[in-house]
Amino acid sequence: MKKYGVIFLSMGGPTSMNNVDEYLSNILNDKDIMRLPFKKVLIPIILKKLSAKSKKQYVQIGGKDPINELTFDQASKTEQELKNAFYDLKCYVSFRYCSPRIIDVLKNMKEDGITDAIAFSQYPQYSYTTSGSSLNELAGVLLESEFSFNWSVIDTWCNNEFYIHAWVDIIQKHLNKFNEKERSDVLVVFSAHSVPMKTICNGDPYVYEIGSTVHDIIKKLQYTTKCVITWQSVHGPSKWLEPKTEHYVKEILKGSTHKHILIVPIAFTTDHVETLCELDIEMLNEINGTLQEPRLHRVDSLNSHPLFINALANIVQLHIRDRNSPSLLNQAHTYKHECVYCESNRCKNRCDLFHEEAKKFINF
Amino acid sequence: MKKYGVIFLSMGGPTSMNNVDEYLSNILNDKDIMRLPFKKVLIPIILKKLSAKSKKQYVQIGGKDPINELTFDQASKTEQELKNAFYDLKCYVSFRYCSPRIIDVLKNMKEDGITDAIAFSQYPQYSYTTSGSSLNELAGVLLESEFSFNWSVIDTWCNNEFYIHAWVDIIQKHLNKFNEKERSDVLVVFSAHSVPMKTICNGDPYVYEIGSTVHDIIKKLQYTTKCVITWQSVHGPSKWLEPKTEHYVKEILKGSTHKHILIVPIAFTTDHVETLCELDIEMLNEINGTLQEPRLHRVDSLNSHPLFINALANIVQLHIRDRNSPSLLNQAHTYKHECVYCESNRCKNRCDLFHEEAKKFINF
Repeated sequence: MKKYGVIFLSMGGPTSMNNVDEYLSNILNDKDIMRLPFKKVLIPIILKKLSAKSKKQYVQIGGKDPINELTFDQASKTEQELKNAFYDLKCYVSFRYCSPRIIDVLKNMKEDGITDAIAFSQYPQYSYTTSGSSLNELAGVLLESEFSFNWSVIDTWCNNEFYIHAWVDIIQKHLNKFNEKERSDVLVVFSAHSVPMKTICNGDPYVYEIGSTVHDIIKKLQYTTKCVITWQSVHGPSKWLEPKTEHYVKEILKGSTHKHILIVPIAFTTDHVETLCELDIEMLNEINGTLQEPRLHRVDSLNSHPLFINALANIVQLHIRDRNSPSLLNQAHTYKHECVYCESNRCKNRCDLFHEEAKKFINF
Repeated sequence: MKKYGVIFLSMGGPTSMNNVDEYLSNILNDKDIMRLPFKKVLIPIILKKLSAKSKKQYVQIGGKDPINELTFDQASKTEQELKNAFYDLKCYVSFRYCSPRIIDVLKNMKEDGITDAIAFSQYPQYSYTTSGSSLNELAGVLLESEFSFNWSVIDTWCNNEFYIHAWVDIIQKHLNKFNEKERSDVLVVFSAHSVPMKTICNGDPYVYEIGSTVHDIIKKLQYTTKCVITWQSVHGPSKWLEPKTEHYVKEILKGSTHKHILIVPIAFTTDHVETLCELDIEMLNEINGTLQEPRLHRVDSLNSHPLFINALANIVQLHIRDRNSPSLLNQAHTYKHECVYCESNRCKNRCDLFHEEAKKFINF
């Protein structure tokens, strides 16, 4: 008898001021996003620099990041929705940079008698720096230990119709708060986490998956709003994708072209430090404080919006439906080396592992 | 009795060496893409500089640009396919920068007894620099003259399923030319015409519509190939979207990561100077000449590929089906001011005109 377990893979965040440094250290030690030389010397230096700024941010949003609780809530509501649709499965949550880490979750799943495991990336648009890194960690653990589940992977879902529908609903509801005259003039700014130009040149699909998501939303909004895509959270000295959200918004507000700007944090699925602090406090509060009336707004994050829970459940249902199909072998980024210049053994091992798993599964 | 006329709107190209200068002059005088000060002084200077380079390119591809004949062929085959499906309509072709211009085509349509006119942009991804400019020209002519057709507009179709299918077929056929071992290692480079960063900041949807097209193609190819999007045909000194196709390809070939690179001219629908000269002669021939064996390849353009003709006919059919629906009012970029900073009266007049036309049409 099959028993399905779905693991939500997210980045997570610090749950108290005491584990901010540990969290940052885990990020700096992620070989998939940081390829630092002289790690033993460099990481403590960078950590010291980051720590103060980062702690200040977490203090401002209440001493912890809400992403963990929100992800658990999404997982439990998705499980309930799937149970209502007669899918007998259990949803688990694992974080890349904080507890519960993947190894502990796998132990729980074994204890629960799970036979079939689905790794479900919580990043709607695939990037090797996010979904790729989480899946590499999972594969690393699987290769070093013995967990006899049948594995398959959900690694991109940027066009899922319920996911698009959830954003459309959130944006439309916020637009309805403006009076009719103002509404037609609101500029919608889709703000996504930026990536280094090097990542784009490597062939990471993140940027065009963002484009694809935004285009689907605009189509469903029937092209009634003006919009742009901008890029936030640039780190370090290298060249990153532009225009930067904050610079762009300031430029627009200088002119009188648009009375109101509505920010949509398009690549995130929950509130966390980059929405609550970077967008709300450091950008919205600061900029609105200089104006006579607030002109900069942000829509709610997806969090546990009912349509977003529909989306998460629908993505799992479609995956289970297609799990026995040979086409699954080629459906996912997970089953090949994604990047043009990729020479990472971690990526190769992950691709080989999940490819073999999928082949076994469909009796190839 | 309704009689439909569909006007294909394309940029066109010189039909002989004698009209290269006239063609370039028409581009430089397009107020929607060039906002030059001191036009009377500047345009002759720029024209002189461009003319020599441009003429050399046209000599290399046989003394004329094939885009005109190819567009006429597409229109006539689309008309035939629609007639086979019992759609009694006529397809016309008009070019933005050469003959036949829109005014002459409208006269022909009047003589032919057309009652309902559909303006059909031949740029799959909407940009105000291409589709926008053509539609502005059309609106300008309509506002200055009297052509009593009922108007509607097809201005973007980057996700049409037959259009995607046509590219998938072309790419797959080219990949099949490689032996199995080599095939899995071919890097597919989608090369699109670049745009200035200023255009992107203005909120032009071109870049994310390109992303959306590429993502649909990759999905239909079942994620079996590695790919990147690069940008070609950068002009002038300002900052344009990167990575540049030629630089990127050279970098890849320097390493030994990918034995073969396959270029897909994703934003163009026919061969023309930017595929035949810029890609084939100036890039492929030159680069392959420095290698022991050809490693750089280009897929065929869409031209009159049967699946692409299916796409063009399907787009018209879907448009006619939806033409009486109130949702048409909001379906197109044409019915509003697209760009964040837009203060162009040409765009405003165009939007107002086609919006009024659509309202009349659906008895709103």
